[in-house]
Amino acid sequence: MELFKEINVHVKPRGVRLQRVKKVDLKPIGYVHRASKQEDVKDKTLASQIVIHEKYVKALEGLEDFSHLFVIFYMHEVRSKETERLKVHPRGRLDLPLVGVFVTRSAFRPNPIGLTVVELLERRGNVLVVRGLDALDGTPVLDLKPADDRDMVAQLRVPEWLKKLHAEQ
Amino acid sequence: MELFKEINVHVKPRGVRLQRVKKVDLKPIGYVHRASKQEDVKDKTLASQIVIHEKYVKALEGLEDFSHLFVIFYMHEVRSKETERLKVHPRGRLDLPLVGVFVTRSAFRPNPIGLTVVELLERRGNVLVVRGLDALDGTPVLDLKPADDRDMVAQLRVPEWLKKLHAEQ
Repeated sequence: MELFKEINVHVKPRGVRLQRVKKVDLKPIGYVHRASKQEDVKDKTLASQIVIHEKYVKALEGLEDFSHLFVIFYMHEVRSKETERLKVHPRGRLDLPLVGVFVTRSAFRPNPIGLTVVELLERRGNVLVVRGLDALDGTPVLDLKPADDRDMVAQLRVPEWLKKLHAEQ
Repeated sequence: MELFKEINVHVKPRGVRLQRVKKVDLKPIGYVHRASKQEDVKDKTLASQIVIHEKYVKALEGLEDFSHLFVIFYMHEVRSKETERLKVHPRGRLDLPLVGVFVTRSAFRPNPIGLTVVELLERRGNVLVVRGLDALDGTPVLDLKPADDRDMVAQLRVPEWLKKLHAEQ
């Protein structure tokens, strides 16, 4: 396949310096607020707040015209040791196969980034009230993306272990 | 509303030190490879590759059981000046309303993170062949998330300007 000619080696053409970004520095745009630290964050029926930094309030104007958004957040309570895992049992369940961390939504992954689609219940200035955000109180938020029909795939193929998990819930 | 009691001020309980994460350091897990630098990255019918660092190959095991994944990437060619914009016309079109950057998928945003759902055509070890990734050659990839039925919202509400954009394409 034509595509695979260049995959194994980063070919550095003569005289051209191949610069690759080695580190990525980001800053929180806001933080998750929850009513109680004791809440079960996995309960997707619960509402929580995202308090965006006030300097970005204009960057939120019009967001209320979308019903849903993707929240990209940084799972700050994951310890660095835990980011070294390569395989996990989904949800820690030993009856499910051991798969790569990139094959799951586990918090244990090289960059502990979370991604969740949430329902936007209300915006009040720099405060978003959302439903379904599985992030702890104090979680730094990195970005928000409005959810668009083009993000929604009608026919997905998923593994048997995931069907089993969903069937139980 | 009960929820709003604590939103405006970060109340610091006596004797408790409220520590907020102020910066987030991430590392690329791999890079986007495209057949040609001249390709139109907005053409979602094109295939491209994601070459994941070889040390993470085990973390990809089982990914081929999913048809689609979310790719979270860092738009490294955005200049720092461009991350300061708060409002944009979607796709730079002056006939569409000026809205907040978080209300669009513009690359100009405080953290220039990209999020795209792609079709996984093939995995060969640490190389993923995907369709629909709108990222430039050399783009650092931060994370991969398998796409799950629970990510797909059946009924979305979106603004009129977005419907207009989609109707034209």
